[in-house]
Amino acid sequence: MRNALQKKRIHQLRKRLGQAADSKCDGIWIIQPENRRYLSGFKAEDAQLNESSGSLLIDGNHCLLVTDSRYTLDAEREAKGFEIHTLKGGLEDGLPEVWGRLGASTWGFEADYVTWGLHRQLCETLHAHAPAIRLVPVTGLVEEMREVKDTHEIRASETSARMISSVLDEVIPWLKPGLTEKEVARRIEDLAMEKGADRLAFPSIVASGPNSALPHAVPTGRKLRKGEPIILDVGVRLNGYCSDMTRTVFLGNPRAAFKDIYKTVREAQRRALEKIGVGVASDVPDAAAREFIRHAGFGDYFGHGLGHGVGLATHEGPRLAPRKPVTLKKGMIVTVEPGIYVPGKGGVRLEEMVVLEREGPRILTKNDHFYDF
Amino acid sequence: MRNALQKKRIHQLRKRLGQAADSKCDGIWIIQPENRRYLSGFKAEDAQLNESSGSLLIDGNHCLLVTDSRYTLDAEREAKGFEIHTLKGGLEDGLPEVWGRLGASTWGFEADYVTWGLHRQLCETLHAHAPAIRLVPVTGLVEEMREVKDTHEIRASETSARMISSVLDEVIPWLKPGLTEKEVARRIEDLAMEKGADRLAFPSIVASGPNSALPHAVPTGRKLRKGEPIILDVGVRLNGYCSDMTRTVFLGNPRAAFKDIYKTVREAQRRALEKIGVGVASDVPDAAAREFIRHAGFGDYFGHGLGHGVGLATHEGPRLAPRKPVTLKKGMIVTVEPGIYVPGKGGVRLEEMVVLEREGPRILTKNDHFYDF
Repeated sequence: MRNALQKKRIHQLRKRLGQAADSKCDGIWIIQPENRRYLSGFKAEDAQLNESSGSLLIDGNHCLLVTDSRYTLDAEREAKGFEIHTLKGGLEDGLPEVWGRLGASTWGFEADYVTWGLHRQLCETLHAHAPAIRLVPVTGLVEEMREVKDTHEIRASETSARMISSVLDEVIPWLKPGLTEKEVARRIEDLAMEKGADRLAFPSIVASGPNSALPHAVPTGRKLRKGEPIILDVGVRLNGYCSDMTRTVFLGNPRAAFKDIYKTVREAQRRALEKIGVGVASDVPDAAAREFIRHAGFGDYFGHGLGHGVGLATHEGPRLAPRKPVTLKKGMIVTVEPGIYVPGKGGVRLEEMVVLEREGPRILTKNDHFYDF
Repeated sequence: MRNALQKKRIHQLRKRLGQAADSKCDGIWIIQPENRRYLSGFKAEDAQLNESSGSLLIDGNHCLLVTDSRYTLDAEREAKGFEIHTLKGGLEDGLPEVWGRLGASTWGFEADYVTWGLHRQLCETLHAHAPAIRLVPVTGLVEEMREVKDTHEIRASETSARMISSVLDEVIPWLKPGLTEKEVARRIEDLAMEKGADRLAFPSIVASGPNSALPHAVPTGRKLRKGEPIILDVGVRLNGYCSDMTRTVFLGNPRAAFKDIYKTVREAQRRALEKIGVGVASDVPDAAAREFIRHAGFGDYFGHGLGHGVGLATHEGPRLAPRKPVTLKKGMIVTVEPGIYVPGKGGVRLEEMVVLEREGPRILTKNDHFYDF
């Protein structure tokens, strides 16, 4: 099953390679970890940007996975249908040598992932040893394929979204004043792992009181208090697929100002969900939420985009934001997450993960902790 | 205190900028997260490569931190002495605009971190709006400064190493047949967080039986069994500083083959530690361990380098490996981690973290779970 999927993806990719107008190439070198997994099934992640666990080389006739001895066994186990090649030294020498042996003369490289330095080293080696081979930049080719999820991926994403929802189902009633943000984050991770997650999709955000005004807060030793907003922005990775959701919780009765902010964010989200759909431009739901927040007087306090695609990566295309709109398609999975953040005071964010179906958006996240202030 | 350190580092950096022979520049753009923290104190990490939480722009007269609204408050709080500039849009437009306002005409960029694509976009914007400004590649400038730790950093690294050692002190006696690798990994993380770690330095490796032959194994549902090797490769991040250590544990009596492998790895490590020191070339301790392992008949089964620097990043310079030797200096902190991995059977790795002092290497990791087979 998994194998048939990957075959189909490689078939599609090969067709696109021939069609790419701006960057014609007859082979492609894939090093971006999620693209690599999408096309080959090879699950390894990269410890750091400069420590790749493997590269795919795909041309009209070959599917090669180039790695080093640390990953050979994993690669053989996971990347069925790929020939595994183990390098002794670094990529800068190893790749040109392999390119020399394969048929393609123009190789696409992932311009938004390969560093300027590695590209230069590769060009120097090619120049010296295989001057007939050219590298051409490719942008978003596999990423675009990944934006539209197939049935298998939608199921995997839904399972991941259900898992993180059930984590929040348990965590929220357990919250009480005196717990630290860090303790709450630990509990979230414990539950996620107990339920069988691969790992968290990203470090949980547990941000209370003034910390909730930091959209990307890191959990601290601060203790939860009554009446203040507590933002829980959490997700798991399950069978490779990420989930991402946010609830804002109050212990006891919040001040009127926060009730007002909460109601505004909730209504902004409702309006965005109403606009979102197949064939709609991705800036339309963002504008619906943003306009509503602006009219309510909080226009300066919603600094990020409305949402983003979710899949093998937590953040991927399409972006729901004011700039660079794209047309939303059936099978896309995106977050809808308006927020209002008042510096020094606190913030509220609400986030759902939805799949775009012919009939409209279907919400994959399922936790009903909301307030009707 | 923290502030004085960063001032000193920026002073050093400015001196180096003037000296850099191959890449002369009068300002430098820093986007690599650990370099950024090292120079400014700004703690944010990057969620993904294409999602920077901030850039430093340092020239002779300015220290600027350019970020977006998600991080403005953090930046103001943490990067004392830096002027904070909040971008509305993307880096590709925002940076050229700021460069235009500052004095420097040649800006260094981190060639091993900036992607080929971002560099191209920046050049296009500069070409259109500020053609007098040039970007020049810079490699390893701040990374080299980070290789030699100051007193503050050695103390922070030692505290981090002590914390992960004490985690292993508790975990190893608790191990028993029937526990899964994942359960052990959870316990390690729980203890690390209880003890106050920022987070794990990297996902723990808990690899039992045949899985221990995979140097970068991900914990699975496999249950620990008697007599087989169990590799625990773990580390925490504490006040930004990473630790990294490995023990191989047996429950009950291992087969003679594994006793032999264990003894070989332990002696290889001892020989490497004997060779390591200030003024020594970094390939010398690697060769000592590698030679010993080869003579013992396991030459094909030690596929990785002997060790690496540890600091704000888990893996940084210098590398202790057969290629590209450098001279080891006082204040460097490195791992010493030989291993033997027999595919399908299992492996053994032992790893200590040491600081190079005038008198010799001092081991920072402190867990005495070793076998005298």
